[in-house]
Amino acid sequence: MGRSAFPRVTGEKVIAKTKFLEFKELSYLNKFGDERRWSLVSRVGGSRAVMIVPFYGEKLVVTREFRVPVGGWCYSFPAGLIDDGEDAAAAAERELREETGLNLAEILAVSRPVFNSPGLTDEAVTMVYARVDGTPSREHLEADEDIETLFLDREQVVALMNDEKCFIGAKAWIEFYHFVNGK
Amino acid sequence: MGRSAFPRVTGEKVIAKTKFLEFKELSYLNKFGDERRWSLVSRVGGSRAVMIVPFYGEKLVVTREFRVPVGGWCYSFPAGLIDDGEDAAAAAERELREETGLNLAEILAVSRPVFNSPGLTDEAVTMVYARVDGTPSREHLEADEDIETLFLDREQVVALMNDEKCFIGAKAWIEFYHFVNGK
Repeated sequence: MGRSAFPRVTGEKVIAKTKFLEFKELSYLNKFGDERRWSLVSRVGGSRAVMIVPFYGEKLVVTREFRVPVGGWCYSFPAGLIDDGEDAAAAAERELREETGLNLAEILAVSRPVFNSPGLTDEAVTMVYARVDGTPSREHLEADEDIETLFLDREQVVALMNDEKCFIGAKAWIEFYHFVNGK
Repeated sequence: MGRSAFPRVTGEKVIAKTKFLEFKELSYLNKFGDERRWSLVSRVGGSRAVMIVPFYGEKLVVTREFRVPVGGWCYSFPAGLIDDGEDAAAAAERELREETGLNLAEILAVSRPVFNSPGLTDEAVTMVYARVDGTPSREHLEADEDIETLFLDREQVVALMNDEKCFIGAKAWIEFYHFVNGK
């Protein structure tokens, strides 16, 4: 059989499940055709998320949110799961409003779904770069959400990146790096 | 009690475990002090990884690797777990050599550990931007690894981003976006 037949996933077993996540073990044939196993986590009902990189004039809009897995407050961007029947742009507009109260004024770029940690999970996120406007508000937050909205210029982003006590999301950190060093 | 006491993680239970991953449920007190649960996945032995963004002259070095959770070939950068006693720069140099055969010539920037998907996992990655040199080689790959090394100029990165059939890692996609649009 040709090399193109391997690697290949051959089976899937759910090991454990909670309301929102499934822990699975996949069987696959490695490059030699030998059977191996790989464990991963999936979101129940589909692992499709959206993240907005919001520009407010010359400033970057950054969220600060308590993240249970990390055990602390994490700096990132507005993000959330894409609902059934929604496209990424509509989800971005909705999540931006829910989490910050801001309005999506103009979409600058949209990625395809890309993978947060493809060795660990099939979770995919669509990146939406956008100009935003409006006034921040917490009135659309869900009961369990606790999200602050910050408007940061380059100096403030540098200060955040240099503050070792702050937790920062990886995609946000990369955007911070380019926001500070770009152009 | 002041608002600063909440949210707060109060307990941890391992629901299931495989050789490399643990599936956990944390108890926490939400912003109102009400107890809630949150499930997540952790890497056994610590969730510390490194990813290299390698520049080879004017080209970007990109890896193509079969990723079982995604069920296909995924374009990204050299990456791997940081060994005990290793710092991020040493891990970057080692993983770059193992996965591509290339040599880390000059480190341009190093992030702090940042979080791939802080609602899903405590997995953290340190980003290392570097100039690299040498000749690609597959001789240091582990038996189960199957990684190709590509040297892409801007046009080739644009073509990759436009090819809907390709799976791309999220951090890599963001770097591609800035590689193409930057400066």
